[in-house]
Amino acid sequence: MRALVLKDKQLKVVTNYPEPKPQPGEALIRPLRMGICATDLELVRGYMDFTGVLGHEFVGIVEKVAGKADPKWVGKRVVGSINCVCGKCDMCKAGLREHCRNRTVLGIAGRDGVFAERFTLPVHNLYEVPALLDDDQAVFVEPVAAACQILRQLTVEGRPFITVLGDGRLGLICAQVMSQLNATVRVVGKHPEKLELCEKWKVKHRLLKDVGLRADQDIVVDCTGRREGLGMALQMVRPRGKIVMKTTVAEAAAAPHVDLTPLVLNEIQLIGSRCGPFSDALELLAKGKLDVLSLISKRLKLDAAPEAFKAAGRSATIKVLLEP
Amino acid sequence: MRALVLKDKQLKVVTNYPEPKPQPGEALIRPLRMGICATDLELVRGYMDFTGVLGHEFVGIVEKVAGKADPKWVGKRVVGSINCVCGKCDMCKAGLREHCRNRTVLGIAGRDGVFAERFTLPVHNLYEVPALLDDDQAVFVEPVAAACQILRQLTVEGRPFITVLGDGRLGLICAQVMSQLNATVRVVGKHPEKLELCEKWKVKHRLLKDVGLRADQDIVVDCTGRREGLGMALQMVRPRGKIVMKTTVAEAAAAPHVDLTPLVLNEIQLIGSRCGPFSDALELLAKGKLDVLSLISKRLKLDAAPEAFKAAGRSATIKVLLEP
Repeated sequence: MRALVLKDKQLKVVTNYPEPKPQPGEALIRPLRMGICATDLELVRGYMDFTGVLGHEFVGIVEKVAGKADPKWVGKRVVGSINCVCGKCDMCKAGLREHCRNRTVLGIAGRDGVFAERFTLPVHNLYEVPALLDDDQAVFVEPVAAACQILRQLTVEGRPFITVLGDGRLGLICAQVMSQLNATVRVVGKHPEKLELCEKWKVKHRLLKDVGLRADQDIVVDCTGRREGLGMALQMVRPRGKIVMKTTVAEAAAAPHVDLTPLVLNEIQLIGSRCGPFSDALELLAKGKLDVLSLISKRLKLDAAPEAFKAAGRSATIKVLLEP
Repeated sequence: MRALVLKDKQLKVVTNYPEPKPQPGEALIRPLRMGICATDLELVRGYMDFTGVLGHEFVGIVEKVAGKADPKWVGKRVVGSINCVCGKCDMCKAGLREHCRNRTVLGIAGRDGVFAERFTLPVHNLYEVPALLDDDQAVFVEPVAAACQILRQLTVEGRPFITVLGDGRLGLICAQVMSQLNATVRVVGKHPEKLELCEKWKVKHRLLKDVGLRADQDIVVDCTGRREGLGMALQMVRPRGKIVMKTTVAEAAAAPHVDLTPLVLNEIQLIGSRCGPFSDALELLAKGKLDVLSLISKRLKLDAAPEAFKAAGRSATIKVLLEP
């Protein structure tokens, strides 16, 4: 089958990739839409040392299931969470399945991803997509879930001031999701053309160069995807405030060389945040609370995936979708 | 008067330092015992760019008060919190006085410290020392309060595994304070002779080289005072666990060049922690819950302060006290 394969930091569409075989409990899925995420770009730069088929954002049709998996799934249109867990380790037993010690992660670690004609995923990971969401919306469930995770990690009291730092794919989704809170939310970014979308959503926005670093924000969400993000966040957040960190970068050597003294002096909480609840994301999307369609900058065929990755890497681009 | 003055990274005992004059609301205090803290050593290395009389750990006698301050304080034996606040800024009004935007900090920022014959502090900052605590115990109230702050910042459920990383002054105090929790506490350090104290306190302890970095601790308290501390803590803490950071280092350039990817992937909470509640510290000490006397390595006269600082900087030393 056709698949987009990453090997030695090289991307290549191959036509003779072996057809995946679902293991007991797994579904074989044919993707209808796929999304390119910043993590995919970092993987190409060497993050996680991944080799194999890339991709973890998808909506697709279940073509078959294996073993004792419920055959009701066959023919269903689904999205799916990306962590495939053992169910047996201390983390799984403690209810922290997303942190399974033995997990594989779709298109990220130890498991081929979705940028292919077909891929497999445990049926436990699947969520049926309501008919009222079209494919272009459903493909955003994974990043929306990652944004929803922040809501689960924060206890918000009063009406806090929240800055979402970064106006990229994830920043613009987080801004909309954080706006569900009883909070004053603003996006701070570098790209006027991206920030303009905030007007449509009635979300406040500022250019980074116009923002005072006044340590007055109750919560800052770092969606910059850049190592400078944390240093800026530390200057924006108030004493005893919280920074939610969504940024990961490929090179350990390019790790944030940031002075953490303000974190100690100002007693900041820095909260790492990764994958989130698909159920919350599906609900927000189904209720029409989010505008994800405006984020689509480009759509290309799987055959043109290398070109799509180039486009996704340009600063003017927001979301690039792939189609079979 | 005599005072230990820091100027241009040089320490010097001078004999002609101007006698301090208490401002309205302030007390003039004659210290009986003073403690040298890691922060003092960092200040000498250039942290906070401080110039003036060093020192912030003390027990002393109030000699006089100025303005409308209650004269009942005169003659009392006191300890005192180190942040002197404006009472008017947004932080003060929000109840976060320790984070006052306009604060001065005793012997650390904008205010002369306690390594002198006399110094001043607002009476609002003072706590009377119960008679059952002697001077050698009372001088530890400030660092014990800093350790107690951790208890206020953490919500502990079940019976967590807690690692205190670092067997220095603060680490050994934190270990005893954390042991007040319903928790399994261990100290991890590099100095067998310091870790031996833990035997006396029935606190578990391990040498760093003998510890597996297995991401299995619920809470790690970084008391290393070294930039490597955070990287180690990130390898010790479990997914969704918490790291309390007590470490500050002088050189911004020596900031932890640490890969924060595990913080995001494992959704760790990193919590900055600074000064703490004196009332909690006095209560723990008065109840005899802590053994601080065993931490005293050396005591010297104020005149020998430069020598005392050298001793405090040696890895075999725990606490060095100064006497008038």
